Amino acid sequence: MGGFSITRAAHAELCVTDLERARDFYVEALGFVEVAREEDRLYLGGLEERDRYSLILKKAPSPGVTHLAFRVADPEDLDRLAALYESAGCPVRWLAPEEEEAGQGRALRVQDPTGLPIEFFHEIARRERLLQRFDLYRGAHIMRLDHFNCQVPHVQEAYDWWTGKLGFYCSEYTVTDEDPPRLWAAWLHRKQNVHDIALMNGIGPRLHHIGFWVADTQSVLRACDILAARGMGGAIERGPGRHGLSNAFFLYLRDPDGNRIELYTNDYIIPDPDWEPIRWSINDPRRATFWGHIPPRSWFEEASRVAHVLTGEWMPVREPLLVDRPVFVT
Amino acid sequence: MGGFSITRAAHAELCVTDLERARDFYVEALGFVEVAREEDRLYLGGLEERDRYSLILKKAPSPGVTHLAFRVADPEDLDRLAALYESAGCPVRWLAPEEEEAGQGRALRVQDPTGLPIEFFHEIARRERLLQRFDLYRGAHIMRLDHFNCQVPHVQEAYDWWTGKLGFYCSEYTVTDEDPPRLWAAWLHRKQNVHDIALMNGIGPRLHHIGFWVADTQSVLRACDILAARGMGGAIERGPGRHGLSNAFFLYLRDPDGNRIELYTNDYIIPDPDWEPIRWSINDPRRATFWGHIPPRSWFEEASRVAHVLTGEWMPVREPLLVDRPVFVT
Amino acid sequence: MGGFSITRAAHAELCVTDLERARDFYVEALGFVEVAREEDRLYLGGLEERDRYSLILKKAPSPGVTHLAFRVADPEDLDRLAALYESAGCPVRWLAPEEEEAGQGRALRVQDPTGLPIEFFHEIARRERLLQRFDLYRGAHIMRLDHFNCQVPHVQEAYDWWTGKLGFYCSEYTVTDEDPPRLWAAWLHRKQNVHDIALMNGIGPRLHHIGFWVADTQSVLRACDILAARGMGGAIERGPGRHGLSNAFFLYLRDPDGNRIELYTNDYIIPDPDWEPIRWSINDPRRATFWGHIPPRSWFEEASRVAHVLTGEWMPVREPLLVDRPVFVT
Amino acid sequence: MGGFSITRAAHAELCVTDLERARDFYVEALGFVEVAREEDRLYLGGLEERDRYSLILKKAPSPGVTHLAFRVADPEDLDRLAALYESAGCPVRWLAPEEEEAGQGRALRVQDPTGLPIEFFHEIARRERLLQRFDLYRGAHIMRLDHFNCQVPHVQEAYDWWTGKLGFYCSEYTVTDEDPPRLWAAWLHRKQNVHDIALMNGIGPRLHHIGFWVADTQSVLRACDILAARGMGGAIERGPGRHGLSNAFFLYLRDPDGNRIELYTNDYIIPDPDWEPIRWSINDPRRATFWGHIPPRSWFEEASRVAHVLTGEWMPVREPLLVDRPVFVT
Repeated sequence: MGGFSITRAAHAELCVTDLERARDFYVEALGFVEVAREEDRLYLGGLEERDRYSLILKKAPSPGVTHLAFRVADPEDLDRLAALYESAGCPVRWLAPEEEEAGQGRALRVQDPTGLPIEFFHEIARRERLLQRFDLYRGAHIMRLDHFNCQVPHVQEAYDWWTGKLGFYCSEYTVTDEDPPRLWAAWLHRKQNVHDIALMNGIGPRLHHIGFWVADTQSVLRACDILAARGMGGAIERGPGRHGLSNAFFLYLRDPDGNRIELYTNDYIIPDPDWEPIRWSINDPRRATFWGHIPPRSWFEEASRVAHVLTGEWMPVREPLLVDRPVFVT
Repeated sequence: MGGFSITRAAHAELCVTDLERARDFYVEALGFVEVAREEDRLYLGGLEERDRYSLILKKAPSPGVTHLAFRVADPEDLDRLAALYESAGCPVRWLAPEEEEAGQGRALRVQDPTGLPIEFFHEIARRERLLQRFDLYRGAHIMRLDHFNCQVPHVQEAYDWWTGKLGFYCSEYTVTDEDPPRLWAAWLHRKQNVHDIALMNGIGPRLHHIGFWVADTQSVLRACDILAARGMGGAIERGPGRHGLSNAFFLYLRDPDGNRIELYTNDYIIPDPDWEPIRWSINDPRRATFWGHIPPRSWFEEASRVAHVLTGEWMPVREPLLVDRPVFVT
Repeated sequence: MGGFSITRAAHAELCVTDLERARDFYVEALGFVEVAREEDRLYLGGLEERDRYSLILKKAPSPGVTHLAFRVADPEDLDRLAALYESAGCPVRWLAPEEEEAGQGRALRVQDPTGLPIEFFHEIARRERLLQRFDLYRGAHIMRLDHFNCQVPHVQEAYDWWTGKLGFYCSEYTVTDEDPPRLWAAWLHRKQNVHDIALMNGIGPRLHHIGFWVADTQSVLRACDILAARGMGGAIERGPGRHGLSNAFFLYLRDPDGNRIELYTNDYIIPDPDWEPIRWSINDPRRATFWGHIPPRSWFEEASRVAHVLTGEWMPVREPLLVDRPVFVT
Repeated sequence: MGGFSITRAAHAELCVTDLERARDFYVEALGFVEVAREEDRLYLGGLEERDRYSLILKKAPSPGVTHLAFRVADPEDLDRLAALYESAGCPVRWLAPEEEEAGQGRALRVQDPTGLPIEFFHEIARRERLLQRFDLYRGAHIMRLDHFNCQVPHVQEAYDWWTGKLGFYCSEYTVTDEDPPRLWAAWLHRKQNVHDIALMNGIGPRLHHIGFWVADTQSVLRACDILAARGMGGAIERGPGRHGLSNAFFLYLRDPDGNRIELYTNDYIIPDPDWEPIRWSINDPRRATFWGHIPPRSWFEEASRVAHVLTGEWMPVREPLLVDRPVFVT
C-alpha cells in the first residue's frame, strides 16, 4: 500500500462550450451552489462542503475534463507523489497557489500511467458550510462531490497502480465470465464509502462521470421532475434506479455539452481496512441496476475526453482490452 | 341533508399587522405562491390549485380572519343559501364581483348561527396550475388549502347546522368521557377526504387554524428545517407528528401575528356517502398525536378572532359548553 | 349525466393459473393484505380499505379478468342500471348475495357495449381498517384499489357511454395529432381524483391494468427493491416514473401470469364538477412519462382478456380504430 | 494522537430484565435482525452489517450496559491497548475467543479512567450482509450501530484521554457560557462521520444511549408509527427531530427496561483529519433540536448504569462537574 495521505476525491474541472447554458443546467436546474464567477470559469459546490468549490466549469471550444483532483492530508505528500510519478515517467506539472484555480494552494498535476489527468493538493480556501441553511437548498439539493468514474483500456494495470502505489482500497469489482475471469472494473476508495474513483473497461482514458452525493432518494426524483418541468428531460440518460453494485440509488445526467454526472445516495460505509471486496459478474443482470433495467448503449459508449496536463490537448484514446459491455446491452 | 352543491373549503382572508413580515413567513419561508399584490392585500395560493388564490393576507390593526370561503357548484345555490341563513336570522351580505377580492364573482357572506363568518361563491378567476412546474416549487411545497378548523362554544349545535342544513358529512368525531358522552368536536367534509371544516369545543367563535395540504411527510419536515434555518423555529407550535384522528401527518405553525396554520398530508379518501364516522374519546392518548405526544396548552387556548361580516368588528366570544381539553394536557 | 350513484372503482377478479405463485407475488412480495382463502380463490385488500376485499385471485386455466366492480351508494340504482344495460341490448346477470364472491350482497354483472365485464354492487362485508396498524404494513404498503384501465377499439363510443349514460367525469384525455384530432384515450372518474376507469385505444376489449394506490414515492421504490431482492425484477415492466398525464408517480408490474397492475400515488383531487379536462397530444413526449422515458412496446401491446359475464369465456377482441401508440415507441 | 488502529464503535451488551419483552421491542417492533438466541442472550444486528452482531441483550436482574466494544484493525493493538490501560492503573481483563460472546475472538475489556467498561477486539464472526435483502427489511429498517453516548462527570478529562491517548478526532463540541468557557460535551470519532462516542457532562459514568443508523427520515417516522400502533408509544422519549449539533435526524426511545437508544440518520462525512470542530454553546436553542424543541428533563437525568469489567457490579456514579443541562430545560 502506498504511504500517501490521500483523503478523498475533491474537485474537478469540466470544459463546457457555453458557460451560461451550463450554469442554467448546474445552478438553475440542479441547484449547485454558485460560489464565484470569473470571465471564463464558474466555481460550484455542494451544500455540505467546506472546500470553496468541488466543480469548476471552464469555457472551452470542446467538452471534457482538464483534471480530477484529490486532497492529501500531509502537504509533504505532494512532493512524494511528484517523485512517484516522475519515477514512473509520467508528465508532472506544479501549480503555484492561485494559479488557474482561485482558492487552491500549491498543487501537483500528473498524467497518470493510464493517461488520466490527476491533481493533488492540500490547501484550499474555505467557505461557509450551508448544510443547515435549509432555506438555501435548491434543485436536487446537491450535498458534495462523491467520486470520479473513468473508462480506461487496461483496468487491471490501472487497478494495480491506484491500489498498489496510491493506497486505494477496493470495495467492489466486476469480472468477466471468462475462465479465468479478468478484471472488468473496480471501485476504489480512500474515504470510507464505496468509491472515490472507479475504473471501468472502455475506450480511454476518458472520464465516464463525476458522482455527486444527495441526501436521499427523494432528491434524485426531484432532479428528474425539475429537469422535465424545464423542458430538460433529455438530460436524463439512465435511471432513476438502484444499483446492484454499491447499492446506491442513482440518476445519470448529461449536461448540455454531454459531460455525464451522477446523482448518488444510499450506499454504505467501509470503516474497516480489511473489508472483503464484493465481486460481480459483468453479466449479472442485477449488477448495474438491481431491478434489472438495462442501461442504454450510450452509457457504455459515450464519455468525456481528458486533457494532457502539460499541453491542455485532449489525450488520445485506445480501444479497451476486454469486451466493453454486458451481453444483454444492445 | 341539505341540497346545496358545496364542493370544498376554498379560501380565507387572514388579517395581519405587517404585510411584509407576513409575506416573509408565507412566501419566503413556506413557499406559498405569490399570485398578486395590492397595497393592503397579498393573494397567495398552492401549487396544485387553479383558483386564483386560496389565502388572502390583509393588512389590519389586529390579527384574525374576516371570512372562510366555500365554493358552490351551482351559482343558484348562492340565492338558496342566502334564503336559508336569512330565515335563521343570520346577518347576510352580498358582494358584487370583484368587490373586496380581485378575481371572485358574486359572493354571499353570512354570520352563521355560531357566529362564524362564512362566504359562498361560485365564480373565481383561474391561474395556471403549477403542479408540474417542479422548478418553481419552494419551501414546504404548499399544494392547496385543505380545511378550516374552528373553536365554537356549542359543538353539537354547530354540528347540527353544518350537517343537517348544509349537507356536510362527518368523517370522525370526538366525545367526552361523560355518561352519556357529549360531542366535543367533529370533522366534516364535502370533498372526499377527512374534512373541509372541523368544529371543536372551545372559546369561540374563533378560527383555530387553516389547514394546507402538502404532498408528503418530507414536505412537513422540510418546513421545520427551513423555518429553523431562518431563525423562525419559534413559529413551530406543535409537531411534526402523526394524528390519531384523521391519520394525517401534521405540523402546526403560528404566523408572525399568531394566526395558526397546519401543514397536513396523508389522510384518506371517503368516496362513499355511507361512511361510518370514526369515534374517539377526548382522553384517548392516541387521538391528537398517535404517538402519544401531548399538545401544548397554547394549542387548546389560543385561536384567531373572527370578524362580523357587516361591521368588520371582531365577534365577541363565549366560554365553551364542555371541558376544553383532554385531561392530560397541563 | 346519468343519475346513478356510482361512487368508485371497488374490486376486480383476476384469473391466475397458479394460486400459490400468485399469492407469493401479491402477498409475500407486494404486501397485499390476505383477507381470506378458499380452495380456488384468494381475497386480497389494501391497508386503508374497509371493503372486505378489492382484489380476488381466482384459479383458472388462463389469465384474464372476470369482472371490474363499481359500488353504488343507492341499492335501487342496481335495478336502474340493469334497465339501462338491457335497453342497450347488453347481456346482464344478477348475482345473489354471496354468490361467487363471499361478502358481496346482491350484484349486477353486465357486458357493457364495449364488451367489458362490469359489476355493480352496493353491499359488501366490512373488515377492520388497517390504516393505523403500521405494525402490519408489509411490502409496498398497498393502500387501496384506485382504478381500472382498459384497452378498447372505439374510445369515443366507450367515452360517450361512460360519461353520457353512467355520469363519469373526465379529468384528462389524449387526442391524436390528426386534423381534426380524435379521442385516443380518456381518464374518467366518479370519486374525486384522476380516475376510476381509463379507456385507451387498443386491441380490445381488454384490461390494461388495475391501479392500486400507495401512500408515497418511497412505497413505489420499495416495491422495486423488494421484487428485485426476491429475484422477481422481471415483474417490473415500466417505471418507476412520473406520469405527465395525471402527474402520478407510478410503477407497472406484471404478475406471474402477465396480468398488469400499477402502483400509483401523488395525483391530485378534483372536487369541482366543472373541472376543465386536461388535454394531451398522443405524441407529447412528456405525456406518458413526464421525464421523457419511452414506454416499452409491451405496454401498448399486451393486456389481459376479459370474460363474458354469462359464459365465462374470453371475449373476442378487435383491432383498434386509431394508431395504437405514440410515434416514438418502437 | 494515539497510534492505535481503532476503526469504529462496533457492539454493546445491554442488560434487560425480561428477554422476551426486550425481544418484542427490538426485533418485533423495531426490526433488528435476530441473529442468534442463547438461553440468556439474544444477538441482534443491523441490515448493513457484516459483523455477526452489534447488540447483545443479556438477561440480568437490573438494566444497564456491560461493555461498549470497538474494533481494532491490527490485532496487536489489543496488546498495546492493554499496556496503555494498565500503565494508567485501569482494571483490564482478557477474554478468550468465544468467551462470553459467541463469535468474538480474543478481546480486551478495560475500565477506562472515567469508569466506562470498554472492550476492544479484532476478530468477529461474519454473517451474510442483508443490505440488499429488501424483502427482509422490517420495522424501522435498522442499518447498523453508529455510536455510543455516555454521561461522565469530568468531560475534559475524558476528552483528553479519548483524543490524546486513543486517537479519536473531535467533530463537534459544546461549551458552557462561562468565562472562560468549559467543555460540556464532545463528539468524537474514528470512522468518518460525526461520532463513535460522545461524552456529555452528567452523573456518571453512565451510558446515555446507543445510536443506530437508519437510511432516511422516513425510517425514523416509521418507527414512531409502528411503536404507537403496537401500543408502545410510551417508548418515544424525544423526537422525531433534527439535531443542530451533528445535523442528524433523530428519535430517542426507551426500551422496556429504560435503556435508551437513538435512531439516527443524515449527518455528514468527515474524511479529512484537519476538520475544524464545530463549537456550540450549551444554551444555544438550536443546538439540541435545530427546530428549538426543548428536550424533556428525563433526557438529561436518566441513563443506564455501566458494569465493572472484573466484578460485573454496577459502577458507582458521581455528580458532574458542570451544570448538567441548558438553562431552558425545566
